Amino acid sequence: MHTGSSATNFPIEAPGSGIPGHPEHTMNSLSHDRRRPAAAALFLAALLWSSPADGADTLHSWNSGPTKFAVIQFVRDVTTEGGPNFVPASERIAVFSHDGTLCPEQPAPAELAFLMDRIKALAPKHPQWKTKEPFKSALSKNLSGLAAAGTRGMLELTAAAHSGMTTDEFDATVVKWLAKTRNPKLNRPYNMCALLPMLELLDFLRSSGFRTYIVHRGDAAFLRAWAEKAYGVPPDQVIGSNVRTKSEIRKGAHVLVRRGEFDILEDGAGRPSAIYRVTGRLPIAAFGNSDGDLDMLQWTAAGERRHLVLVVHHTNGGNEFAYDRKAMFGRLDKGLDTARKNGWTVADMTKDWNRFFTKTGK
Amino acid sequence: MHTGSSATNFPIEAPGSGIPGHPEHTMNSLSHDRRRPAAAALFLAALLWSSPADGADTLHSWNSGPTKFAVIQFVRDVTTEGGPNFVPASERIAVFSHDGTLCPEQPAPAELAFLMDRIKALAPKHPQWKTKEPFKSALSKNLSGLAAAGTRGMLELTAAAHSGMTTDEFDATVVKWLAKTRNPKLNRPYNMCALLPMLELLDFLRSSGFRTYIVHRGDAAFLRAWAEKAYGVPPDQVIGSNVRTKSEIRKGAHVLVRRGEFDILEDGAGRPSAIYRVTGRLPIAAFGNSDGDLDMLQWTAAGERRHLVLVVHHTNGGNEFAYDRKAMFGRLDKGLDTARKNGWTVADMTKDWNRFFTKTGK
Repeated sequence: MHTGSSATNFPIEAPGSGIPGHPEHTMNSLSHDRRRPAAAALFLAALLWSSPADGADTLHSWNSGPTKFAVIQFVRDVTTEGGPNFVPASERIAVFSHDGTLCPEQPAPAELAFLMDRIKALAPKHPQWKTKEPFKSALSKNLSGLAAAGTRGMLELTAAAHSGMTTDEFDATVVKWLAKTRNPKLNRPYNMCALLPMLELLDFLRSSGFRTYIVHRGDAAFLRAWAEKAYGVPPDQVIGSNVRTKSEIRKGAHVLVRRGEFDILEDGAGRPSAIYRVTGRLPIAAFGNSDGDLDMLQWTAAGERRHLVLVVHHTNGGNEFAYDRKAMFGRLDKGLDTARKNGWTVADMTKDWNRFFTKTGK
Repeated sequence: MHTGSSATNFPIEAPGSGIPGHPEHTMNSLSHDRRRPAAAALFLAALLWSSPADGADTLHSWNSGPTKFAVIQFVRDVTTEGGPNFVPASERIAVFSHDGTLCPEQPAPAELAFLMDRIKALAPKHPQWKTKEPFKSALSKNLSGLAAAGTRGMLELTAAAHSGMTTDEFDATVVKWLAKTRNPKLNRPYNMCALLPMLELLDFLRSSGFRTYIVHRGDAAFLRAWAEKAYGVPPDQVIGSNVRTKSEIRKGAHVLVRRGEFDILEDGAGRPSAIYRVTGRLPIAAFGNSDGDLDMLQWTAAGERRHLVLVVHHTNGGNEFAYDRKAMFGRLDKGLDTARKNGWTVADMTKDWNRFFTKTGK
């Protein structure tokens, strides 16, 4: 166990003391090291077994400082066997809010952009939508009207527009839309807008034995259609609202058909119940960016075990967006005060991050 | 890739050809092999990477024969990279019914035994239960009355008896009950009644990259309180009915409190929707034992990828219980006909298994 670290002594070097040849050896260097195959292979096996909490190898886009240190120290604490804060791997649950925490949510969250386009495409067959909310706001791209309609409005749009489809047909519709649409400011497809520092954080936690869940207020199926490729998070680790389905036989095959009803993931107090319903556990790490995430963060912070609660603060209008207390989507007001009052970790994008997005290769 | 296997050529020997020293090397023998540390460590690393589908090392309680062969061949097929039936690890979802598939459900399922005891203990405070179903049947231990009340009756009992408790208090109640109660015929605690061949199967699938889900018609929280220790299945991989919870602050801490309402996991056609809601995917392996599991099995069988559908047939009244078409719990009638008609794998306990339970150490 590492002891004696102070807040100014950031563990940028790799831990794992006691292993010969460390810290020069890494996974990459090993594959080119032909000189000592036995030692190399043994060290590799040790790496695979011990999953050392070495954020320095992963968190490249995070600047050295108290925020990065808090993350690394937390992971080190809960993964140090025999230490006072050790948490068994099966209980290492981390929950991430989606919009605004893992990706930008401005000028509008991805699912809302999807729904506006879908409602427009389907409108000729539904003349009544012109005068009925939330369809009217969707057709006129009235973002404040849609923001006011909230999660329920979003689910009304998806349920109405996509009921009768099979689950596979809906997935294909989402994937097709992603291929031809971009976030207007960032000029990137929505599934390539993931915030790079958060991708690194997901990787770091998973390589440290965590299961990383995404909490999405909209239709879980929308996010599940692309979350695995975009974030490495499989469908069963996406928690969201749910459009109900029913079994049917179509063309001789058993399929699931989306109905016009849904179970809503309520913002605020509904989030802990929704997370518990899926995970059956209190998370030990929670990441959010808005007042809607506050209950989830407070619930995690109430745990008796070592935990990490982190708020992403959008402060960089140049690289991304800058907003907090007065935002239409992702308002962070009470959440910011609560974070400061309770000493939670706040990731200030400008101070704490040095890169924001992956290269798209285009 | 292995080819040319016939139904009479059971792959009891380990696969993994091409690795020097195989098949003599196993995880256990390695740790004692001091002669060639480099080769040993490299082989170990290869093992950890490749997760070979070697059921012979795991499925000890399964007799050699077509049933065991079907299981091993399936796992080999979906894990053979480059083969025509390969399925990526993240998509290897297996679903197991609980009562009657992973453990005995006679003379009554574990949760029903729990509820009868709890209702009896709490009855003095609820005099109205004496005349109201399903409480009346629970108090008189009228199993046919409880069987008729179905999953809904079971949830009415748990919601009424345990509403107002925090989720932690409920877990503790279940664990305490398990410690002092036994299945009357088997004389074992209910959490030590797992069918050994099914435990081996769970292990085999997990070591081959599967995520193993349990589908439980009763309260998911009941099973989650002990499924990880009993089956190696964490709470987030237990799919069941859900007693709704709400966030509350008690003694200064955020807790979740069980309400008197529930969302029911419907038998039959409700199962595919419930599984999809949690996993977001069509499973490639499904294991059941009763007509209530039939829709889940048919849905899995409808998948276009290589899949395994297996029905556990309780035929051994000496070691366990013998029942099928006329059982009060776990009736297997239409399910048996459908399995035979469609060529699904049927595990006949008498023919296919040679051991039924673990040693309890008592």
